[in-house]
Amino acid sequence: MSIFEELESEVRSYSRGWPVVFDRAQGSWLHDESGKPYLDFFAGAGALNYGHNNPQLKQALIDYIQRDGVTHALDMFTVAKRDFLQTFRDKVLDPRGYGYKVVFPGPGGANAVEAALKLARKVTGKEAVINFTNAFHGMTLGALSVTGNSMKRGGAGVPLVHATPMPYDKYFDGAMPDFLYFEKLLEDSGSGLNEPAAVIVEGVQGEGGINAARLEWLKGLDDLCKRHNILLILDDVQMGCGRTGPFFSFEDAGITPDIVCLSKSISGYGIPMALTLIKPELDVWEPGEHNGTFRGISPAFVTAKEAIDVYWSDDALEKSTKAKGERIASAFSGIVEAYPEANLIAKGRGLARGIEFGSGDLAGRVCAEAFARGLLMETSGPDGEVMKLLPPLTLTDDELTQGLSIIDESVKAVLTK
Amino acid sequence: MSIFEELESEVRSYSRGWPVVFDRAQGSWLHDESGKPYLDFFAGAGALNYGHNNPQLKQALIDYIQRDGVTHALDMFTVAKRDFLQTFRDKVLDPRGYGYKVVFPGPGGANAVEAALKLARKVTGKEAVINFTNAFHGMTLGALSVTGNSMKRGGAGVPLVHATPMPYDKYFDGAMPDFLYFEKLLEDSGSGLNEPAAVIVEGVQGEGGINAARLEWLKGLDDLCKRHNILLILDDVQMGCGRTGPFFSFEDAGITPDIVCLSKSISGYGIPMALTLIKPELDVWEPGEHNGTFRGISPAFVTAKEAIDVYWSDDALEKSTKAKGERIASAFSGIVEAYPEANLIAKGRGLARGIEFGSGDLAGRVCAEAFARGLLMETSGPDGEVMKLLPPLTLTDDELTQGLSIIDESVKAVLTK
Amino acid sequence: MSIFEELESEVRSYSRGWPVVFDRAQGSWLHDESGKPYLDFFAGAGALNYGHNNPQLKQALIDYIQRDGVTHALDMFTVAKRDFLQTFRDKVLDPRGYGYKVVFPGPGGANAVEAALKLARKVTGKEAVINFTNAFHGMTLGALSVTGNSMKRGGAGVPLVHATPMPYDKYFDGAMPDFLYFEKLLEDSGSGLNEPAAVIVEGVQGEGGINAARLEWLKGLDDLCKRHNILLILDDVQMGCGRTGPFFSFEDAGITPDIVCLSKSISGYGIPMALTLIKPELDVWEPGEHNGTFRGISPAFVTAKEAIDVYWSDDALEKSTKAKGERIASAFSGIVEAYPEANLIAKGRGLARGIEFGSGDLAGRVCAEAFARGLLMETSGPDGEVMKLLPPLTLTDDELTQGLSIIDESVKAVLTK
Amino acid sequence: MSIFEELESEVRSYSRGWPVVFDRAQGSWLHDESGKPYLDFFAGAGALNYGHNNPQLKQALIDYIQRDGVTHALDMFTVAKRDFLQTFRDKVLDPRGYGYKVVFPGPGGANAVEAALKLARKVTGKEAVINFTNAFHGMTLGALSVTGNSMKRGGAGVPLVHATPMPYDKYFDGAMPDFLYFEKLLEDSGSGLNEPAAVIVEGVQGEGGINAARLEWLKGLDDLCKRHNILLILDDVQMGCGRTGPFFSFEDAGITPDIVCLSKSISGYGIPMALTLIKPELDVWEPGEHNGTFRGISPAFVTAKEAIDVYWSDDALEKSTKAKGERIASAFSGIVEAYPEANLIAKGRGLARGIEFGSGDLAGRVCAEAFARGLLMETSGPDGEVMKLLPPLTLTDDELTQGLSIIDESVKAVLTK
Repeated sequence: MSIFEELESEVRSYSRGWPVVFDRAQGSWLHDESGKPYLDFFAGAGALNYGHNNPQLKQALIDYIQRDGVTHALDMFTVAKRDFLQTFRDKVLDPRGYGYKVVFPGPGGANAVEAALKLARKVTGKEAVINFTNAFHGMTLGALSVTGNSMKRGGAGVPLVHATPMPYDKYFDGAMPDFLYFEKLLEDSGSGLNEPAAVIVEGVQGEGGINAARLEWLKGLDDLCKRHNILLILDDVQMGCGRTGPFFSFEDAGITPDIVCLSKSISGYGIPMALTLIKPELDVWEPGEHNGTFRGISPAFVTAKEAIDVYWSDDALEKSTKAKGERIASAFSGIVEAYPEANLIAKGRGLARGIEFGSGDLAGRVCAEAFARGLLMETSGPDGEVMKLLPPLTLTDDELTQGLSIIDESVKAVLTK
Repeated sequence: MSIFEELESEVRSYSRGWPVVFDRAQGSWLHDESGKPYLDFFAGAGALNYGHNNPQLKQALIDYIQRDGVTHALDMFTVAKRDFLQTFRDKVLDPRGYGYKVVFPGPGGANAVEAALKLARKVTGKEAVINFTNAFHGMTLGALSVTGNSMKRGGAGVPLVHATPMPYDKYFDGAMPDFLYFEKLLEDSGSGLNEPAAVIVEGVQGEGGINAARLEWLKGLDDLCKRHNILLILDDVQMGCGRTGPFFSFEDAGITPDIVCLSKSISGYGIPMALTLIKPELDVWEPGEHNGTFRGISPAFVTAKEAIDVYWSDDALEKSTKAKGERIASAFSGIVEAYPEANLIAKGRGLARGIEFGSGDLAGRVCAEAFARGLLMETSGPDGEVMKLLPPLTLTDDELTQGLSIIDESVKAVLTK
Repeated sequence: MSIFEELESEVRSYSRGWPVVFDRAQGSWLHDESGKPYLDFFAGAGALNYGHNNPQLKQALIDYIQRDGVTHALDMFTVAKRDFLQTFRDKVLDPRGYGYKVVFPGPGGANAVEAALKLARKVTGKEAVINFTNAFHGMTLGALSVTGNSMKRGGAGVPLVHATPMPYDKYFDGAMPDFLYFEKLLEDSGSGLNEPAAVIVEGVQGEGGINAARLEWLKGLDDLCKRHNILLILDDVQMGCGRTGPFFSFEDAGITPDIVCLSKSISGYGIPMALTLIKPELDVWEPGEHNGTFRGISPAFVTAKEAIDVYWSDDALEKSTKAKGERIASAFSGIVEAYPEANLIAKGRGLARGIEFGSGDLAGRVCAEAFARGLLMETSGPDGEVMKLLPPLTLTDDELTQGLSIIDESVKAVLTK
Repeated sequence: MSIFEELESEVRSYSRGWPVVFDRAQGSWLHDESGKPYLDFFAGAGALNYGHNNPQLKQALIDYIQRDGVTHALDMFTVAKRDFLQTFRDKVLDPRGYGYKVVFPGPGGANAVEAALKLARKVTGKEAVINFTNAFHGMTLGALSVTGNSMKRGGAGVPLVHATPMPYDKYFDGAMPDFLYFEKLLEDSGSGLNEPAAVIVEGVQGEGGINAARLEWLKGLDDLCKRHNILLILDDVQMGCGRTGPFFSFEDAGITPDIVCLSKSISGYGIPMALTLIKPELDVWEPGEHNGTFRGISPAFVTAKEAIDVYWSDDALEKSTKAKGERIASAFSGIVEAYPEANLIAKGRGLARGIEFGSGDLAGRVCAEAFARGLLMETSGPDGEVMKLLPPLTLTDDELTQGLSIIDESVKAVLTK
């Protein structure tokens, strides 16, 4: 029995589908301890948008460690934090006209969500929150209460209350006008819906099955929130940092959410870091009212600054992401058409892409075939029925070609058996 | 206006008492950008037990980064995780007879607590939890609900329910037998106390005011839990990793809690990492029922392994911590006796030490005087009335002498004004 | 200042619209202390289906009191309870094929609802409940949590959780297929809807605005509940006891709800009484697990038995109720057509009837005009926009003619001003 | 099988210990259908303080029914309500200096409690409530959440939150100063106790085991509430209306609670009625914010007024109750002394009296012996270990002698077996 089987809790999951021991990584590639390479279309579940151990970020990181830059600093002022904030303001916020203030809520995406929910409730004095079908926002109690997955919710051990799910975009395939039910409940003082402090939404639902909301739907949601004095929280933990093309997944919808959650790829190198961006008028917190030990990890600030400098000083990455996304969309259309009886559905935006199969079993078998061929992909969706691609945004055209070819073979192996 | 004032949320707190910009750090010292050194008796709120940028850990970290070891791996198998697990088992768990399994709950202490509470509720099918007066367990909704501080609780924005506070050790200065009220409520089927799934407790309360529970009190609590079939969760996030002398703060009480939470100094270098240790029979989770993006940060595994190898292969650190703790205790006794009218109280165990002043104002002024003299210390306790020392365990005798001397002067400056 | 203004809480409401002091009552008439008669189309909010002080019930009641029949008996066995149970079984349950067991949950409708919710949760082990937009189920905390009205919910002072509102029949005027959203949420394991223990629904919503669900909608709801293993609670507190024609409002839908709540007119004489009817297989309660002081009020049993004997030994009352209901429907159609620009809507079933005006102000003014003309009616609906008729089922054709004539005049007075 | 066994839910309880069918009742006596008399030391669980079918109340009731006085009137103004309010003010409130306003919260004690909790939360904007060990306040969700009994709480089916139990008087037999824990938690901002809106307490706990709080304890509680700005709710549902001697159980403590709950014997005849008395400055309700169908049951007003006129125009009943209570106390002392090895404890105040046995089994067997001898008594306390006496206040000295004699024999039969 390996030390993993002996010591690690049964809660582990990725190691079940990929039962090898990884050792080194570079760019789009992971290597197991025998040296076998795997093309990584999973990318840390979206935490490695710039690839594994990106050389430019790595150099900045090593330089910082070498010179004994302060590593851990809670919310003290540091040179590393200052440099990050200046770069984030100058290259991300200002060019897009987003006048947010920055909260460092703790090390992970769930912390960003918890801080967002706390602040929205404090500002409005209301408890209720609207979330969406198949949302995923994290595993701590506050974040879990707005997450859709019933297995994960079941793990809470207490009733998860205060949230009411509304249908995400396309939930009824057009059988129902957008926001019809939601807005009727809000306008009807007898509806029984507790007046919500906030709406929390993802621009594209990754864990929920690569569901890409139309931009006009996001715009409509923003309008609805404004009409009803509800704060809009945009959880861009997985879909931000360029995953769908632009830095924020909601930019092209022309909206400015009240609160934005970032994490995963924000540090750029896979080091834990998270941000909660808030409109200045919402900054009503007392000093220390929300805190945490891992809010000032300087190595993360260093790689985060470097990533922004390298990738967000111009629009090259955004354009390339969109172009590669279109390549995948086109390839997936081909697959969908090749198996008309399978009723496959191609989904996604930018480099968040997926194919919905009829069942979790089918999608899982496709991923297993891909793994056998050296490609890492996971499934998502309520029943794991969606084959999900989140390749590094920095992958090369050749790598994309190679990956799509493996996917082709894998789908074929499963559907023509 | 600095970029911090312009961009960072008002929730920031440490930077208010220490309004300088830190840049580099080594061992027990932080340096601001002008090069001015500060002796650090705060140590990342307990996250830097081995000092800043510990040279041995730093070398291992740089080596790992240089050779492109995988950085971010969720819960995949990695060489770095394997090495950590083996070392943790061989040098921490096995020698102490603790047969725990390991959950990687997410990057911070709050994640360790959230996972512990979820599991305790899942195993028992009960929702209620007992916490203690002046407990601190974290800021996510589940962790916050078992935290005592009213200002922090107020930030939740929803009623925090499911937890009932019981008096921590010495809460009544002996006016009430230990556990009298708690056990009576448990035994009386008409008491109105919801049957608890678990008790969550700290071995020494750091944020709560450096309250060190007597070992026999911890033992009594463990006995009570066993008698009533309640799971005992020991939150060793701040007091574990040698802070009180032994690796775990509860070792000397001769107990084996059902669940143990570790974080802060476990990675050794200030990189986010957390563990939830569970008795094997509690490992009832479904794969993926609790997960998170930042559960497999290999650089943290590398420095964690190295820290254990360097500091926990023998009992040198434990002995040195206890000895230095006694030096502080002795110095604090002197201070207490020097100002009889001030009714000071010396508190703590190992290298978690404090002096309780009559008010938060006094304690705060002492810390301000210390900062002016180049020493970093924070206050804790419900009203910030406790001057709190958490120096690196690796500080030298000279550094300790120097720090105690500054403390002497600072107390004098405040109390004799 | 009157004693009422001096001593009674500001929470009083009916006395504001009808500022007279009532003294005597008979049949369809209330008399104020000056002797002025008022035709009562309100009937105790549905608690006086057989009219005020019904002579046959009155005689049975006086006989019982005269002979010192036990008055108050909690849940002891009494002759009065036995007689009631036998009659209820023989004339109500058995002929309709309803094999329910009977819970005496306490004196009022809210107690019937609280008992229903408790039992449904106990049986299923689930907490969540589905209610409907504009539902009204009572003012105790459990009942209030499934009630829609936001003003009344606001009075709770704690967040009302555990219930999710679904659209009642016709909520979208056909823009959305029945149960589309509800069933999709149930079937999607990622929807975020907590698995419900029960659905609670009214056959016709009285307080919600005289919304009469189509029988096929009720049937569809029953089917959905069966498909998904959800208990169906039918709250017939206001619409049972013949208000819509048959004894139970849901009879004609051909369904057998799992749990039925009765109160208001069940005692027949206005004396507090309530029943929770449950399928025998749900009778899992421990003795005394739900109790209360006022569960065995014998005078209520006596009048309840008498009412059933007099009115439910044949189908005369049912037919008469339907016929009178049709008369009102026809009269209301005339009113609706007479004021096309007012967009009035006639609503209801049996002798639960209403006209929806464009606003609460208009409906309120119509009721005020009616009061000035000697007719008692209240408004309902989320904004009080529905003029609501619940006349005694025993009113004469002449009384109906008289009342409809006053309504005609009152509407005219308001709409042609 | 009887109709009871066939039709009535298993939740029934009193009929299990007293398996006869009662028919008539008068004064202190119940008669079963065979005519067998039972001396009633249970008195409707305190709802029949003036005996069964009290002749003076009966005459007033019949007169009212005969003359067609309005029976059911919600919260309309009626002559019957006016007469009640005037008498209640003139003979109960004014002579005692209690300037309360009156809420009619619904028909039963739980409604009085629900209204009290709602109002306290609305006034203070806080959710938390302090209750006491072994409290009983009712079975609706709000009332149940402040009730102690674990079996009854278990019936809720949802976690009962928002209430924290504190030790009732004598809970530790003097081992702990009064309110030590409670006040420490309130004063310590880190205690983790949610700031309470209100304290809810019974003057004597009936269901909890005839626990009579010392008057100085009640006074101390009142002082504590004033110091900490907490509303004091006195639930006098069972112990009011003269049960302990004075009209209110708390009069002799010299306190004026902010809110008082009355029900059970307030109507005097066993007809459902309840009152929530509130200080005028708390009357912040919107019209209709709390309502209910059975708030204006005129027959109850009529008998309530008559009961006050007959029994509370002078202090004769109060004196007689205290005297008879002393007789019982003396007799119980004798019993306690007669069985020293049984460790019996005599408890109570006024005509709320009990003997605590070592177990529920013993107390239950004593009650069974008494029933066999024609005396009705129930048990109370968390394990049913207390034999509980609530005889009509109007019982004669001979009846008391007779009852005490049966108790003597019953105890002897059980303890000397």
